[in-house]
Amino acid sequence: MSSPTPAYDAVAATYTRLHHFGHLQSLASWDQSANMPAKGNEARAAALAEMAALLHRMRTDPALAAQIERAEQEPLSELQRANLREVGRDWRSANALPESLVQRRQLATARCEHAWRSQRPANDWAGFLSHFGDVLAVAREEATLLAAQTGLSRYDALMDQYEPGMRTAVVDRLFGDLRQWLPGLIRQARERQAGERVIEPTGPFAVAAQRALCEQVMGVLGFDFDAGRLDVSAHPFCGGVPEDVRLTTRFAEHSFIGSLMGTIHETGHGRYEQNLPRALLGQPVAQARSSALHESQSLSFEMQLGRHPGFVQRLAPLLSASFGSQPAFDAQNLHRLLTRVRPGLIRVDADEVTYPAHVILRYEIERALIEGEIEAADIPALWDEKMMDLLGVDSRGNHKDGALQDVHWPAGLFGYFPCYTLGAMYAAQWFAALRRDLPDLDARIGRGDLAPLFNWLRERIWSAASRWTTDELAQRASAEALNPAHYRAHLEARYLG
Amino acid sequence: MSSPTPAYDAVAATYTRLHHFGHLQSLASWDQSANMPAKGNEARAAALAEMAALLHRMRTDPALAAQIERAEQEPLSELQRANLREVGRDWRSANALPESLVQRRQLATARCEHAWRSQRPANDWAGFLSHFGDVLAVAREEATLLAAQTGLSRYDALMDQYEPGMRTAVVDRLFGDLRQWLPGLIRQARERQAGERVIEPTGPFAVAAQRALCEQVMGVLGFDFDAGRLDVSAHPFCGGVPEDVRLTTRFAEHSFIGSLMGTIHETGHGRYEQNLPRALLGQPVAQARSSALHESQSLSFEMQLGRHPGFVQRLAPLLSASFGSQPAFDAQNLHRLLTRVRPGLIRVDADEVTYPAHVILRYEIERALIEGEIEAADIPALWDEKMMDLLGVDSRGNHKDGALQDVHWPAGLFGYFPCYTLGAMYAAQWFAALRRDLPDLDARIGRGDLAPLFNWLRERIWSAASRWTTDELAQRASAEALNPAHYRAHLEARYLG
Repeated sequence: MSSPTPAYDAVAATYTRLHHFGHLQSLASWDQSANMPAKGNEARAAALAEMAALLHRMRTDPALAAQIERAEQEPLSELQRANLREVGRDWRSANALPESLVQRRQLATARCEHAWRSQRPANDWAGFLSHFGDVLAVAREEATLLAAQTGLSRYDALMDQYEPGMRTAVVDRLFGDLRQWLPGLIRQARERQAGERVIEPTGPFAVAAQRALCEQVMGVLGFDFDAGRLDVSAHPFCGGVPEDVRLTTRFAEHSFIGSLMGTIHETGHGRYEQNLPRALLGQPVAQARSSALHESQSLSFEMQLGRHPGFVQRLAPLLSASFGSQPAFDAQNLHRLLTRVRPGLIRVDADEVTYPAHVILRYEIERALIEGEIEAADIPALWDEKMMDLLGVDSRGNHKDGALQDVHWPAGLFGYFPCYTLGAMYAAQWFAALRRDLPDLDARIGRGDLAPLFNWLRERIWSAASRWTTDELAQRASAEALNPAHYRAHLEARYLG
Repeated sequence: MSSPTPAYDAVAATYTRLHHFGHLQSLASWDQSANMPAKGNEARAAALAEMAALLHRMRTDPALAAQIERAEQEPLSELQRANLREVGRDWRSANALPESLVQRRQLATARCEHAWRSQRPANDWAGFLSHFGDVLAVAREEATLLAAQTGLSRYDALMDQYEPGMRTAVVDRLFGDLRQWLPGLIRQARERQAGERVIEPTGPFAVAAQRALCEQVMGVLGFDFDAGRLDVSAHPFCGGVPEDVRLTTRFAEHSFIGSLMGTIHETGHGRYEQNLPRALLGQPVAQARSSALHESQSLSFEMQLGRHPGFVQRLAPLLSASFGSQPAFDAQNLHRLLTRVRPGLIRVDADEVTYPAHVILRYEIERALIEGEIEAADIPALWDEKMMDLLGVDSRGNHKDGALQDVHWPAGLFGYFPCYTLGAMYAAQWFAALRRDLPDLDARIGRGDLAPLFNWLRERIWSAASRWTTDELAQRASAEALNPAHYRAHLEARYLG
């Protein structure tokens, strides 16, 4: 008997092949950050550019366009139709760009990111500009093409790749509101904490012990080590494929908090990937919904759970077992340490309250860059002004802890930054909904009974993948679309409560 | 101005693309052995099968065939002509096999190798047979197709893939002669060593210290750590790409000799790869000449140099520095330890003198398997008989240290085994030639002055890549084609001298 959906099946087969090739691409990207020695870079960049070109050719094959069109007329299930919707998104975004641009983007970002690794420690802004110009030029070109196709603004067209449906107008409203109350909250929290006595942990903390602790905590958080691993890279990330998730962290002997909380963050990403639905793996509908949804999982782990007083109580004895007992590992002290509000230069080291200020800064600058309102050379002055304005921090002349601190811009990832704070908002919304569904959630966390929390996330978020739009997923999970009130309520309860 | 060699340029461009895709394939294969968690296997196998099919399609594209034919009429340089000769070899071997067979081979070997990893420790011969049947069936089919194309016997057709130009008739003559004198040499060497007092090193030897020692010795041997690295796998190998060589070893706390000598072996492979000519990288002419030539490098490092009394003298203080001083690390004792002749079950643990007996055994069995003279079920009885005959060792019922000990057969690598002993013969020939060219070679090794040795290998072997046939390369390097007399002379000098 022949299939009643031959065109859909052909489209699905193409996406299975894309999934197979994407596997090799993801692995090579992970390896590039986690393992690759310096002289391997040129060959790796060439190999990845070749693969990017192949995937682009597959996505822009006219035969695929025709199959998608015919598949839309076939008798599809609701899930198949959802897949076809996501296929359409993927097709439109690929077909907006010529292959030559895809290849130029790959080469420009690989070169810029590689150079950035040594330019950052050298505080070499001028050197960075020489490569970054190409990355920005390619990104603007890409944004222009995507905007022409979608009718969106250039920045919206880029942001839509990470956060389907999200628009500058919404982000402006959310971040504009945040800009109003955040400085006051930071000030009040700092005043409140001024009188607290917090004992700093005394190092050094052996890297081997830190690694063992990170892996232990990943186990507590349900990470499946038969389907993933933890390695080291300069900038922590969650890579690999859903079937084999590669988390990275970084270790410094003088402190374990960065590696531990970073690992907890990436474990949130990792569990999302490990729990995407298996039956349709490879199809766009089985991919994580969006970047903000992804960050909502990492921040549910790192912030909502990881800094929860009940969880910190469970964490404290693990620290003593790993590094030997010391007064700083008292659970209450540890909680104060993990919730201390201290404006600083580095986004990834920022506390939960000052973090969104870093995101607002990057959002405002990158949007203006992409819309052509400013040039790359304007970044340092704007950076300094906004750091002072938002956090009262002087960043002048310190490029390495300024615009050179993040991999996103050298890697050409414009439009991603807002997702961090949108994710924090979603995470607060999930936990508000969780507390409605599981009134004893906080007590359970204190008892180390995390299964109901993970089950909730699996059912509502992870296994839903891209079956619904983000708004509909949020509605189904928490009975409302994105509502930033939960985020403010969470921060006020934790920091002023 | 347009190129006077448009067809050749098109062929070369295709091989550059194959090199880029092959990069991702090699990396994923290395990762599969060095990093991949168990549940990642199915997705990895599917990704690698997809890539194998793509590469096969590129190699069998009729347009490529036409370009190769036209390129042969173009005004090519000697090097371009050599490249076209190697392209022709590659083209013929790819075009003898249909894509369906390539895909079945990939899946059958991935499944069998994966199952083998747990069947080996469980001594599960019956379980192994259930997957190995598919691997053997596919290998025979492949051999039949290659034989039909080349006019060679089925086994010769497989062996020719690893060792171009080598034939069963030659191997039979070389190994037949070896079979004559080897048992006597083993007996004499053992009699001679019977009276020696050898002190065993006392463990345990911490894995971290072993790893540091291995990396130190790789440095002494000139391995470029900016273009490669050392990791761990169940079966040590040299993988990756020439621009980024991935060596593996394995550590056991009770002994450091396996990890150290294994690493020295793989470093020989690694330096060959790292020193292939850069200008034409990606073209077949820039690839290592053959498997026996590759093994001639690993065995030049592990056996000719690694067990040279002068080198062992340099090694001894490194051991004391790594593990603390002990009587076993006396240089003379260490040399006795490293040259002790002891028939055993395991090929990779075998000493220099009994090693070829393991290779003869495998050669005789796999040739009969491929030629259809025996079936997989016949292996254990033949194995037992030959182990007793060649080495006087009883292997009955011990499958895990018998036919299950090697990855080659589950991975479908029939025709490779002879290359180990051919490589040992070439290595002895290189060192005989080296001593003619550098009369003070042995004194230099004793002084740790290894540069002239490496320079000789770089000029004569590594940088020549596949520019000449193996016979011509041997002629140019050592003024004669393969001459097994050097191998016998080397063993007699070292073990009976």
